[in-house]
Amino acid sequence: MLEERIRRDGVIREGNVLKVDSFLNHQMDIRLFEEIGREFARLYKDSKVNKILTIEASGIGIACMTAAQFGCPVIFAKKSKTSNLADDLYTARIKSFTHNNEVDIVVSKDYLGPGDNVLIIDDFLAMGEALNGLIAIVEASGASLVGAGIVIEKAFQPGGDLIRSRGIRVESLARIKSMSVEGGIEFC
Amino acid sequence: MLEERIRRDGVIREGNVLKVDSFLNHQMDIRLFEEIGREFARLYKDSKVNKILTIEASGIGIACMTAAQFGCPVIFAKKSKTSNLADDLYTARIKSFTHNNEVDIVVSKDYLGPGDNVLIIDDFLAMGEALNGLIAIVEASGASLVGAGIVIEKAFQPGGDLIRSRGIRVESLARIKSMSVEGGIEFC
Repeated sequence: MLEERIRRDGVIREGNVLKVDSFLNHQMDIRLFEEIGREFARLYKDSKVNKILTIEASGIGIACMTAAQFGCPVIFAKKSKTSNLADDLYTARIKSFTHNNEVDIVVSKDYLGPGDNVLIIDDFLAMGEALNGLIAIVEASGASLVGAGIVIEKAFQPGGDLIRSRGIRVESLARIKSMSVEGGIEFC
Repeated sequence: MLEERIRRDGVIREGNVLKVDSFLNHQMDIRLFEEIGREFARLYKDSKVNKILTIEASGIGIACMTAAQFGCPVIFAKKSKTSNLADDLYTARIKSFTHNNEVDIVVSKDYLGPGDNVLIIDDFLAMGEALNGLIAIVEASGASLVGAGIVIEKAFQPGGDLIRSRGIRVESLARIKSMSVEGGIEFC
């Protein structure tokens, strides 16, 4: 269903850009998000998830609909332009290839710690910058990382497989093998 | 329930700052958000809401849980640092008193237009800057504005009443009459 939707409503632009603004990250199709949340809940049903971690802004909606299935809270990492080294924050620096800059992402130490079983949720996985930053924050907190749930993975970019090779579970609902303006999208 | 939660878990800081990071805008209590969504759905049940508009980042979770009740999509306005005057965007400039700067908020023209009945959702209302910006975008689109649903209104600041005086329906679930570090919170 998701693959069909990506094929139908996704717009491919030069430079491996896939625009899914119409249903995923500007306008958000909540009925689709509910299906996505149910699927992540099915995949991680035995993992005792008690916290979901995501990153602002476009991960929040999917994270919330997934959390509704688990009955657990969501924490969203905030992007900070200022160098934010407060004692009460976990931080990680990530590179944005979309915006060609670096940002620090921060999570309050109050909300993650040993004893938590954390599922990371995000809309996209390509180079893995955001996901690596979120993983670093979970590790710094002493919480257990259950794995990650990703809506769309650009599997032709190395992020996902590099993270899997470290023994981390990454479940992507749609994995794009290749895409081009002329040829459209091929899924794995 | 919400007022009790604000009293219990809200932290008051100098300068009329109310921190509700633990359940509303950093960690998000999804069970509470579901209750909030049901309440907004009850308040606006006769309004034929078919689109919910919010603004990144902390409005998104509440907007999604409300949209799940209406079965409609959410659109979130994006904050843009660059002066973004593309033909395909509705824009409004808003002042942030928290960050002491101005940002443009943008919504694609593809997702709002005549025939839409729009409910605006946000976590906070104080001076009304964000809400006024979202209202301006709805008006520019030709859509009908059903009203706004706000979780916490600082009713001692003028934003809400100024907007109501223009005939716009604003429903705030918790209205703070006064707050201080010493005296705590008094609700309307």
